[in-house]
Amino acid sequence: ASSESSIQVTPAADRKQPGSDALVVTSQDGITTITLNRPDKKNALTTQMYHDIILALEAASKDDSAITVLTGNGDYYCSGNDLTNFTDIPPGGVEEKARSGAVLLRDFVDCFIDFPKPLVAVVNGPAVGISVTILGLFDIVYATDRATFHTPFSHLGQSPEGCSSYTFPKIMGPSKATEMLVFGKKLTAREACTQGLVTEVFPDSTFQKEVWVRLKAYSKLPPNAMRISKQVIRNTEKEKLHAINAEESNVLRERWLSDECMNAVVSFLSKKAKL
Amino acid sequence: ASSESSIQVTPAADRKQPGSDALVVTSQDGITTITLNRPDKKNALTTQMYHDIILALEAASKDDSAITVLTGNGDYYCSGNDLTNFTDIPPGGVEEKARSGAVLLRDFVDCFIDFPKPLVAVVNGPAVGISVTILGLFDIVYATDRATFHTPFSHLGQSPEGCSSYTFPKIMGPSKATEMLVFGKKLTAREACTQGLVTEVFPDSTFQKEVWVRLKAYSKLPPNAMRISKQVIRNTEKEKLHAINAEESNVLRERWLSDECMNAVVSFLSKKAKL
Amino acid sequence: ASSESSIQVTPAADRKQPGSDALVVTSQDGITTITLNRPDKKNALTTQMYHDIILALEAASKDDSAITVLTGNGDYYCSGNDLTNFTDIPPGGVEEKARSGAVLLRDFVDCFIDFPKPLVAVVNGPAVGISVTILGLFDIVYATDRATFHTPFSHLGQSPEGCSSYTFPKIMGPSKATEMLVFGKKLTAREACTQGLVTEVFPDSTFQKEVWVRLKAYSKLPPNAMRISKQVIRNTEKEKLHAINAEESNVLRERWLSDECMNAVVSFLSKKAKL
Repeated sequence: ASSESSIQVTPAADRKQPGSDALVVTSQDGITTITLNRPDKKNALTTQMYHDIILALEAASKDDSAITVLTGNGDYYCSGNDLTNFTDIPPGGVEEKARSGAVLLRDFVDCFIDFPKPLVAVVNGPAVGISVTILGLFDIVYATDRATFHTPFSHLGQSPEGCSSYTFPKIMGPSKATEMLVFGKKLTAREACTQGLVTEVFPDSTFQKEVWVRLKAYSKLPPNAMRISKQVIRNTEKEKLHAINAEESNVLRERWLSDECMNAVVSFLSKKAKL
Repeated sequence: ASSESSIQVTPAADRKQPGSDALVVTSQDGITTITLNRPDKKNALTTQMYHDIILALEAASKDDSAITVLTGNGDYYCSGNDLTNFTDIPPGGVEEKARSGAVLLRDFVDCFIDFPKPLVAVVNGPAVGISVTILGLFDIVYATDRATFHTPFSHLGQSPEGCSSYTFPKIMGPSKATEMLVFGKKLTAREACTQGLVTEVFPDSTFQKEVWVRLKAYSKLPPNAMRISKQVIRNTEKEKLHAINAEESNVLRERWLSDECMNAVVSFLSKKAKL
Repeated sequence: ASSESSIQVTPAADRKQPGSDALVVTSQDGITTITLNRPDKKNALTTQMYHDIILALEAASKDDSAITVLTGNGDYYCSGNDLTNFTDIPPGGVEEKARSGAVLLRDFVDCFIDFPKPLVAVVNGPAVGISVTILGLFDIVYATDRATFHTPFSHLGQSPEGCSSYTFPKIMGPSKATEMLVFGKKLTAREACTQGLVTEVFPDSTFQKEVWVRLKAYSKLPPNAMRISKQVIRNTEKEKLHAINAEESNVLRERWLSDECMNAVVSFLSKKAKL
């Protein structure tokens, strides 16, 4: 693994995974799998991991796989943005921090908007924050029945990202989307499936087996047809999605500089430190 | 209460409500509540009430509440447009009546489109017509299991308003939206919830208690974050909603002058008078 | 029946239907019914039938019926595009075939986008391919519980049409739409109803009776109000639908000339010939 990156690419199926790096990428059976691998931190996303996921998606878009998967290692799928990201203030101060954070967020989400092949989320456990909001940009979302979906933005003085301000109302109607995005209601996997955010829910005991059997079957379909069909669907709203992403990132930059947000994040980290 | 208005504002929690006016506004626990208060007429909306709801929403948008609620007093949530509005013909005749009616409708719906804070419908009983169609513009819709949702536009020779021609197909798909909006199918609360129009349904016996406990909890979240999150969601389609509202109001103005509509309304009022 | 057309129009209710032509049109009780009548071929659509359905819709848009119905005769609703259409190569070769096929497809779908009255699908059995994708353009979709909904585009090296790349994600969310349109998942009638593609499902034993009782009741509502309400709904996205249709048809034209598609269709027809 490079000293500048937490990414570990293992193109060959038999290559052993180190397990120590925060992002693991494997490619097998026509499927490239990007695994969040910070199980002791519930796969919370560090700034480095945002960069590395961008690189991993760019590589996967060009490799010979038919399908790309994002999943998590351990009990959690992803606990969202690592809030310690907020405490690492650069020389430019909090304004520069907010600016660069908004640029990174926008670039990160743009990669999901533009990803050219079928993109599948294998949600192996609870999902929080940005790992939930970007699900609206995936082509398939399979979830274990242990998964939950939680976006406590208001609680942290923040606002929706990942194009969720547009995709969630479209998927579940505004009145269910708002309960999640504005009031922070946590959904069970079954609820998320009923509301269309999740494609299908599987019992945790057979989740991995059932999902991978199905994905391997899908990966054998004509790859160009799948890629082009996915793009035909995405192109109906790609321009809109980029505009939404830009606006959401701008609003969040301002939120991050607000007293409401700073106080809420400090309060959250203090409580956590006391545990 | 002013002689020119049916609105009664009671900013202080302990102020007694007169109960005689058609609209009652209270503010408590960070929640401003606008109550339709014409229970003997099933909370049918008079022309005056449209004007007063506009004023109440404008006041609520500027007060220090975090959340605004619309609800009804008595068995009904709202039986829709009071059809006796049609019989009060001004000196300008039916054409002037239709013109001013369309302007009022458009202004009324624009207020819901532009409302800047989380807006919650507490649907305490059956809802009809415009009280149903504007639900697509609310951020949360809680309903008792006694509620029903009915838009008998075609039966009255009319056409959809409240942006429902856009929001309903978006929420429930075109084939379920059309059955409601074009063929006048009445939904139960459970059906409306399954189809995404309603956020959650509660047993009538615990409805008021459960809903207000939840709303009071929500009202304590950071108010700016909630307001901004709501606006980020709304801004993705605000321009579109205004255009839809203008078009729906124009079409309705023509409908109101059609023989189909006049005959249907006369027939409805005659039957009612005989009861 | 004309020698140039498979269409058979029987405006009078008591006129006997020949049963030999591939499309039968009847008009009764304010309802014009277009019936796919190739039951031995599971109502697969020949090139001639595409042309004839266009003519039938144009005629129905101008007749005095209030509602128009599309249904199938026999066990199937429609098995989609008759793949033998691909084997009838004109003097201009496969390029000319693909070009004219894309023009016909676009004209066919445009008729459904522009149809001015309520359009109802009475899905009497399994539906495949384009008979499924255009359901997103109907105003009501009633289905027997024997019906299934299947779009195996990728399996045949093809891509979505009928505006489904836009309507399906809007109706059921992107993650359920993609499983159907990209991965070819077949839905039961109940699943299609839960996901909003189907308005209501009926037991097969009472399907015809229940559906026609309901449609006859609907056909007695004020016809102008219904027509105008349907158009108000459709006009919110008519321009978008035409653009989507043009793009989908262009992409399909290229797909039809691809090796993936040619090989997949030849393979399908070979397997079928061996049965």
